[in-house]
Formats: sequence, C-alpha cells, structure tokens
Amino acid sequence: MSDLKAIDRQLQQSQPSFLETLKTLLRIPSVSADPAYRDSVKQAANAVLDSLTKAGLKGELIKTDGPPLVYAESPAVPGKPVVLVYGHYDVQPPDPLDLWVSPPFEPTERDGNIYARGSTDDKGQVLTHVNSVAAWAAAGQALPLQVKFLIEGEEEVGSEQLSKYMAKPEAAEKLACDVIVISDSSQYAKGQPAITYGLRGIAYYELHFTGPKQDLHSGSFGGAVTNPANALAKFLAKLTDDQGRIQLPGFYDSVKPVADVERDRWKQLGFSDDQFAKQLGVGALTGEAGYSTLERRWARPTCDVHGLWSGYQGEGGKTIIPAKAGAKVSFRLVPDQDPKQVSEQFRKFIAMNTPAGVQIELIDLHGGSGVVVDPESPFVAAAQQAITAGFEKPAVLIREGGSIPIVANMVSALKADVLLLGWGLDDDGAHSPNEKFCLADYYRGIRASSYLWHYLAEVPKPS
Amino acid sequence: MSDLKAIDRQLQQSQPSFLETLKTLLRIPSVSADPAYRDSVKQAANAVLDSLTKAGLKGELIKTDGPPLVYAESPAVPGKPVVLVYGHYDVQPPDPLDLWVSPPFEPTERDGNIYARGSTDDKGQVLTHVNSVAAWAAAGQALPLQVKFLIEGEEEVGSEQLSKYMAKPEAAEKLACDVIVISDSSQYAKGQPAITYGLRGIAYYELHFTGPKQDLHSGSFGGAVTNPANALAKFLAKLTDDQGRIQLPGFYDSVKPVADVERDRWKQLGFSDDQFAKQLGVGALTGEAGYSTLERRWARPTCDVHGLWSGYQGEGGKTIIPAKAGAKVSFRLVPDQDPKQVSEQFRKFIAMNTPAGVQIELIDLHGGSGVVVDPESPFVAAAQQAITAGFEKPAVLIREGGSIPIVANMVSALKADVLLLGWGLDDDGAHSPNEKFCLADYYRGIRASSYLWHYLAEVPKPS
Repeated sequence: MSDLKAIDRQLQQSQPSFLETLKTLLRIPSVSADPAYRDSVKQAANAVLDSLTKAGLKGELIKTDGPPLVYAESPAVPGKPVVLVYGHYDVQPPDPLDLWVSPPFEPTERDGNIYARGSTDDKGQVLTHVNSVAAWAAAGQALPLQVKFLIEGEEEVGSEQLSKYMAKPEAAEKLACDVIVISDSSQYAKGQPAITYGLRGIAYYELHFTGPKQDLHSGSFGGAVTNPANALAKFLAKLTDDQGRIQLPGFYDSVKPVADVERDRWKQLGFSDDQFAKQLGVGALTGEAGYSTLERRWARPTCDVHGLWSGYQGEGGKTIIPAKAGAKVSFRLVPDQDPKQVSEQFRKFIAMNTPAGVQIELIDLHGGSGVVVDPESPFVAAAQQAITAGFEKPAVLIREGGSIPIVANMVSALKADVLLLGWGLDDDGAHSPNEKFCLADYYRGIRASSYLWHYLAEVPKPS
Repeated sequence: MSDLKAIDRQLQQSQPSFLETLKTLLRIPSVSADPAYRDSVKQAANAVLDSLTKAGLKGELIKTDGPPLVYAESPAVPGKPVVLVYGHYDVQPPDPLDLWVSPPFEPTERDGNIYARGSTDDKGQVLTHVNSVAAWAAAGQALPLQVKFLIEGEEEVGSEQLSKYMAKPEAAEKLACDVIVISDSSQYAKGQPAITYGLRGIAYYELHFTGPKQDLHSGSFGGAVTNPANALAKFLAKLTDDQGRIQLPGFYDSVKPVADVERDRWKQLGFSDDQFAKQLGVGALTGEAGYSTLERRWARPTCDVHGLWSGYQGEGGKTIIPAKAGAKVSFRLVPDQDPKQVSEQFRKFIAMNTPAGVQIELIDLHGGSGVVVDPESPFVAAAQQAITAGFEKPAVLIREGGSIPIVANMVSALKADVLLLGWGLDDDGAHSPNEKFCLADYYRGIRASSYLWHYLAEVPKPS
C-alpha cells in the first residue's frame, strides 16, 4: 500500500527542485516551426529525457526524420492499468518579440507566475507528471501501476513524425496502454479545475496568390489586371458568410450538433461574455450566429486567418500592384469532421472561386481530427478524485477549443481511453507574447498527478 | 537665330557624357519613402544641382522640412514664353530585392537598356532636359527662351514639401511660367512617342485593424472574437463590388464620364488586350465592367491594395488570432474627383463597415487630384514638332493612369499650361524590380527636348 503522506511530505520538500527543472527546460528555445531552432529542439528532447531518467524511469530517444520522441517507462505492474503520459517539448514561435515584458526564453517569476514561451504549453504541464513520478521515487514509494511517457517535439506543427511512428507495428507494442493522460489544456477558470472530454480538430493551410509576373505600377496598370492582394481579400472574405458560417462545399455535412445535455451542463458554468470580452480587450464577442460563446469555442468549427502578407509593408507609400499575396488560414474541426475531407472541400472551393488573372496554390500544412471521449468512464472518476486532492476542489467537465491533432490518432491506434487534465489557465497566453504558468497550479498539478497514479491503480484493468 | 545643326552635332558628341551623368545619378539610392535613405536623398539633390550648374544655369537648393527642392534657371528672354521643367530625383523603394537581375543602384547596360531603380522614373527622364540645356550651352547657343527647373525629392511619397512651398508668395514669383514641361510618363508603345494630356489623381491610405489586446490561441479562442485579419479581408473585399465598382458612398458623383471623342481616338490606337496580358504575364485582363482596358487604365478610378500584413508570416504554422492586421490601399482618381472628399467618403465607409470587436484606424498617406489639359493648345503643337524631330515620328495623344499629384496643384497655382512628354515605355518596370530605361529613348528624348526650346520659343507668349 502506497504511503501517500510520505509522498505529500516529499512534494513539499521538492518544490525548489521542481522549479529548477521547469526553468531549465524553459530556457531552451525549442521552436519546432522554424528550422533555425533545430538544435534547440534536440536539446529540449535531451533535457526531458534527462529529467525522466533522474526520476528513475528507463528512458530513450526514439529517432525520427525530425525531432526525436522521448520515451520512458516505469516497471510493469501486472494486473493494473497501464498509463501513457503524452505531451510535447516543442513550443510556438515567440514573435512578436517586442511585446514580451521579459525575454521569452528567460523564465521570469512575477506575481506568482512563471513567464516564458512554453511555460503552460506544454513544458510546465508535462513536468507536473515527470515531477510526480520523481516524488514517488524520492519518497521511496514504488509506482502502483506502470507509467509510460511519450513526449514529442512537433506538436505545434502537426506531429508528423509521431504520426509516422504510430503507424509502425513496434509502436503499438511499446505504447500499449489502457489510458492516455494529457495535460496540455486549461482549467475552466482560476481556482476551478476541469476535466476536458473534447478537443477540436484542425486543418491548417497556406495560400499563395500569384498575378502578374512582377510588381506593377498601380497607376499605369491599375484597372487592367486582377490585383492578387485585392483578390486574396475577396477570397478570404468568401470563406465565411455574414452569419459566420463556413462556405466550403459540404463543410457542415458531418458536423455533430451540440447535444442538449452538454448545452445544459455548460449553462451551469456561469460563463460571462462581458467578463471574457474584458479579459481579451475586445468591445464585443462575435461569431457564428445561434450559438453561445462556449458552444462556439468548444463545439463549433471556425475559420481563422493566422497570417497575411503582400507587397509593400514598409514605411510610407509604394504604389504597386503586388505580384503575389499569401495567407495562413485554418479551420478548427469538430467530431466527425475529417481534415482530409476538408482539404478536398477547400480545393473545390478554390476551383469555384479563383478569379481570372490570378493563380491560387494551396499548401496543406497540417491537420488532425477532433476527439470527444466518454465523461462517465471509471478513469474520469479516478481523475476526479486525484484533482480533488491536488486542487482541493472537484473538477467540472468541459470541452476545449484547441487541437492536439495526435490525440484522435493515438486513441484510435492504441484503443485506449484518454484523460485531458489541463492545469493551465485561459489567460496564460499560450501562443501569445508573455505566456505564463501559475506556479501554484504547477505544484497543485504535481500533487494531483501524484494522486492520479494511486487512484488509477484502483480502476480494474480493462479486459 | 539658333544653329540647330550645331546643336545636333553637339548631341552626337556628348552621348558618352550624357550616359555618365545618368549613371552617376542612378547610383544614389534616393528612396524617399524610407527614412533610412535620408542622406542619399540629399546627395541626389546635390547631384542634380551640380549637373544643372554645369549646364550653365544659375541654381540653388531650396530648403524645406524634408528633402530640398532643386531650382535652376537660364537667363530671361523678354517677349518669349517661360518654361518650367518639373521632375523628381527621389525613387520608389527597390524591394523585393531578390527579383533584381543586377543590383537596383548599380546601373547596368543590357540589350540597349540601362537597368536601375529610377532609370525611367524619373531620373533618366529629368536628365533629358538637363542634358539638352547642357548641349545648347556646349554648342555655344543661347537658349531662345527662359528655362526654369524645379526638381523635387518627394514625388513618390506625395510632394508634401513642394505643396507647402507652392503655398508661399515667393514661389509664385520664382516659378512664374507659361508652360510646365514634365517627362515622367511613357510613350504609347516602343517606337510610338506620345503626348499625354491627362493623368489620374490618387488618394493613398494605410489601414490598421486592432482586435484583442494580444495575439490569441486560435483553438481556445477561435469562434469567440472577431479576427482582425479575417475582418481586414472582409473589409477590403467590400471596397469593390463584383463589377469592379468602388463602394465608397458618393465616390462616382463627381467622376467625369469618358467622352465619345476620346473613346473613338483611343480605339484608333489598335491596343491589343491579348498582347498586353502576355506582356504582364497574366491569363486575362480584368477590371470594371463596361469599359475597355485603355479606358479603365486612363479614365476610370480604381482601388488597389499595395501591401498586406498580419500575424505570422514565417515558415510553418502558427495557430493564432492575430491582434492586428494592416493594409496599404489607394484609389486612383479621375477628374473631377477630389482626394480630400475621397478621404471623407472613406471615413464614412469605415463607420458603416466596422464590425463589432475590432477598431479601424485610417491614416492619410498622400493624395493629389488628376488633371486633363487641352490637347489643342499651341504648346502641344510645338511639342509635336519637337518630338517629330527627336523621335522621327509624330506623337499620339493619350492619357496616363499614373499620378503626379503635384501637377494639378502647380497648374492651378501658376496658371500655366502643361506638357506631359513621356520618354519611358510601359514595360520599363517603374515601381517594379528591374526598372529600366531604353538608352536610345534617352538620347531621342534629349534631342526632342533640345528642339522643344526652339519650337516653344516660336509660340506667342500668352498675355
């Protein structure tokens, strides 16, 4: 029988070391989107492996054609469920750099938070599980069930290498598990932990518009040719109608409606549009007509432009018809939308909406399906007990608008259940300047994780 | 009586020196839009002044709050018309740099052309007049009428300093003239010189869209807020309808229709849409419904986006709702549209089309009215004789789609006629990479200019 009191004492004692482990990992600029950071991405993999082996696990780097996968495992415990902790050590690009109060890769404590790119997404959250395993070991307690770790380095750019690895027969054996635990999302609110049972999918693209063979003088030629920048604007505008509905042909055919039971449950959460708008600094919330804000964020597809470029972006005026224009754009998907089908729909839409005088190239950057799991499973009940211990408050059941594209893939490949236990907060600024993670939540997350091993071990192993 | 044969001999003899003067000026990167080039802009002013004083004129730099105005004059000739040559020594920014075959500020001869930023717009064309005056002097001939030069350094960014100077009483006296000569446009086609009797105006703006107070994760927040990049696209799309008509309220109220006589005259020019599309590298010509290509370029207003920027423009994917998005956009105007009125219409349009959740800021960058002059004036007849001598072919009468915003201002302030004698070609790439000027046209322009002084002196001085 595990000595949970000894573990609790150990958790208190190890706090300075938990903080140090976090800072060490946050100092590594492991930006997966930009090839310039390739070495740092590898360095982050090694740092994660190092902390796992220090926690007493048997670990290795699994080579890929990109960043390595970090794998580690504790000894098997026959008759008990096997847990696989999934997370990622890569981070989003830090720009715009000038908006950071402290540099993105110099972790800095302010107001009880730690500020750094990757603090909440996902290095800090991954380390709650690494540290909880370390605490069990430091307290002289053997884990009551086998815990495996799979921490990848391409989550922010589509998990291509992990997808390839998952397709190999050896992966199914090595990663075999009963439940996948992922901490890469948010609590419902400050002081209100949550168990997330749904994620959106994503289909991410780059669009290239090409017009005349070179930039043209807009005086001499304006009125004669299709301007690729004007055409891009018109094209992007057509992607949604005035009601916020996406116009790709067949886009909504497979969209699951929001169930009444969910709608009712979310109403109980007391979400305030006014407060949320204030938090984001906008005058009003907007979106698809006919749905509440939580429904629009968690259970409805969206279309967002992430980047735009064309022509002259410098100071003053340059009077050209630019030869090229481009955009990055993605659709968030809900069950049962398939990103591959969305790509086909997008190509059809392009064929229907390419104006004379320009050519449109579509590049698939990455995609992944959404996932919704059963909120009534015994694993969810165990997680509820662990969170109640760690956060001293029971969790609410929510969905999350973000995507962890590999999750649907892993759930189906490993035939495992999944627990999405987010320790972050909505205002952590994941993907934004001044990303942060609340240090109290870091320590609470480590405690909840420590208890999680205990309660999950009480769940009968699925046959 | 002037010895035109002596001048012709001099023109032959001076060709190497004409080429050297051109290369010297083209080597100076006098980009007015970018403050980083401020010193080079001044250097170009001094180089122009230097070549004018070497040509025997009395010159000076007129100080302004920006780049200086270069002024020079030959001795007064009582009873003869006074000519003012207007041009500019500033150039457009050279980017995108990677598309230049030879560096933009290293003038390079290829296939009978000289390649450099500013070669055709407007340094090469300005120097035809400077060199013709130099040739008269070198041939020992006194100019038969007074020639004044006013060469400015802000034409590409709206001529703000010159506009301010024109408002001073001393300007009217110093610049007093009967006809303004401007070479800052194109011939109708290779081997077909033209006299341009109309220019479009321009109203140039920068648009800034601001949404949430910082970039947001597009998963967690997508569906809740107006995305400034999506909003910018929808806004720009609304600026024109499906027929290519501009949607600012009242925009067409003061637009002068294309006269039947002009329409007929332009039909005679034998313009080929197919050939033009091929030249520009586009699959089709497009634009406002109901007008020919020449009408759309010369006599109809247009709306062009010159630059777009928002969010992430780097490699790979970044899943953000960008906090900001921006664009540079201008309207080309035709008589009698007033850029100030267009600014008011644009502000009304913004008020009508600002979606909830974003703020739109409009910045006026520069503007100027179009101008159309009388193609039957005696000055036009004199220019026709000079061009026939210089190019060995009579000129056709055309309009030009580009804008020289200060022209309308000068014409009305000085109560002078204007001659737009373009020596460039449509495919010179003004404002584009690999801008060029045909050297044969450079020398023909110098000869036409030399004859221009002679024929203009035969026009009775207007009373």
